[in-house]
Amino acid sequence: VSTFNEYLKNRCSHIETLLDRHLPPALPTANQLHEAMRYAVLGGGKRLRPLLVYLTGEALGVRVEALDLPACAVELIHAYSLVHDDLPAMDNDDLRRGKPTCHKAYDEATAILTGDALQSLAFDLLAKTTPLLSAEQSLHMLKTLAVASGSSGMAGGQALDLLAAGRPSDATSIERLYHLKTGALIRASVDMGLIAKQDATTNQKAALGEYAHCLGLAFQIHDDIQDIESDVATLGKTPGNDQKNQKPTYPAVMGITAAKAQVRLLQHQAKAALFCLDAPGNYLGQLLDHVLT
Amino acid sequence: VSTFNEYLKNRCSHIETLLDRHLPPALPTANQLHEAMRYAVLGGGKRLRPLLVYLTGEALGVRVEALDLPACAVELIHAYSLVHDDLPAMDNDDLRRGKPTCHKAYDEATAILTGDALQSLAFDLLAKTTPLLSAEQSLHMLKTLAVASGSSGMAGGQALDLLAAGRPSDATSIERLYHLKTGALIRASVDMGLIAKQDATTNQKAALGEYAHCLGLAFQIHDDIQDIESDVATLGKTPGNDQKNQKPTYPAVMGITAAKAQVRLLQHQAKAALFCLDAPGNYLGQLLDHVLT
Repeated sequence: VSTFNEYLKNRCSHIETLLDRHLPPALPTANQLHEAMRYAVLGGGKRLRPLLVYLTGEALGVRVEALDLPACAVELIHAYSLVHDDLPAMDNDDLRRGKPTCHKAYDEATAILTGDALQSLAFDLLAKTTPLLSAEQSLHMLKTLAVASGSSGMAGGQALDLLAAGRPSDATSIERLYHLKTGALIRASVDMGLIAKQDATTNQKAALGEYAHCLGLAFQIHDDIQDIESDVATLGKTPGNDQKNQKPTYPAVMGITAAKAQVRLLQHQAKAALFCLDAPGNYLGQLLDHVLT
Repeated sequence: VSTFNEYLKNRCSHIETLLDRHLPPALPTANQLHEAMRYAVLGGGKRLRPLLVYLTGEALGVRVEALDLPACAVELIHAYSLVHDDLPAMDNDDLRRGKPTCHKAYDEATAILTGDALQSLAFDLLAKTTPLLSAEQSLHMLKTLAVASGSSGMAGGQALDLLAAGRPSDATSIERLYHLKTGALIRASVDMGLIAKQDATTNQKAALGEYAHCLGLAFQIHDDIQDIESDVATLGKTPGNDQKNQKPTYPAVMGITAAKAQVRLLQHQAKAALFCLDAPGNYLGQLLDHVLT
């Protein structure tokens, strides 16, 4: 376990360095937007999505440096989505990662533009030519991330989430929503790790697809449970927001005990999938325990 | 002139067909977000940016079909920027292209997500593999569009524009702001047309770069003049918004006569640049008259 924790620490610090390098510099003469972009991205967050890019690619023998751009890109997309989700017209949150949300630290207009510019930067990074990836691989990653971010993925899920507020729901609808809202980007992270490996086998694709599918759903249910059970210091954001916004979450609809059982079930399913990986998947397995407890 | 008008009509109808095809369908069971995306993009607009992609590429002998994806992509980016710019926290406009703005027709949350999803879709389209463009060309276009959209381009310009409201300004600052806010995407349109031509000459790149530079600036100043002099029926949006938002526009700072003279000067400069094109640039020239009068 200590080796895994060491790995996490190293990768997280590596990701922070890369994000810092790729974000526009916040010089005193520069656009304030640059500063707001750095504020929204740096110095916080679990970095789950970039970690998944690394863990997937590395399990398949891909070099770390070939994974740097997709890892940064997916984290920028995630960060942009948090900035926009926190806006007053959306979930109206004041606290994120233990700091005031972007529109609180700056203003709403800056927060809208910050999210917009972070999304552009994500695709800008993936469009960089690098000797470590073929142009076809970069395009494939771009396509994967764009589809996962858009109306058939994350943004579509967020729209469903807003519509669902205050309405009766059931486990099936909620799972469908979670697969879009949270699952799409988590699957894209794993898929980009797979794309970096030119000749991944059908077995490996199926195993990692199942892993990502289970993790995405489990992670969102776990997040909902935290929103009910945890405190502001642990969360870094204000708990109880789902209830305040009348969001039909999995624990709200199924009960907290069933929700916890479902997380455990999905965690086991995800681990079982790794048995078919034909590659060292132990760190991917340990990541499940790390993020779901 | 009638041939040029015929060309414009044909290309605009072609663009409309393509956008309709690439936007997600608004089935009764589909996400409302799809409908809002279609509302924000279809049935209106001058289509200046996609026209520039076609006019540039076609002047250099590129086949129309090789220009379809970049033409759609840049229009989606433009449409997303209008949806976000119109939001209450930004320019707070109620009318756009003769219809209620997206947040008026739907709501603010939907408008934010609509813009977000349109941006993703733009990059999704450019990441499509097509036999008409090499993967390297597609990546180069993606990079061009992403940089032009982001914090060093359009979004950066919009941030400066908001900061500039209510403050004294001068022609130099305003021109710098316009080159980002409006010019970046217009230059990207021309650049994508150039990228579609594998072996454009240095002369051609320089000539079209100068053309795009002048057109971008002239177009924004012309737009400012319209905002002062035109009526709601002609504009399709509420006039006088710049004054209401205390925007330091070129005509506000330099006077309307100087602003008009500047548009004419830039129009001549852009036409002069076309003399060095070594290719039939007459339609590019006629486009200037079409959009600047």
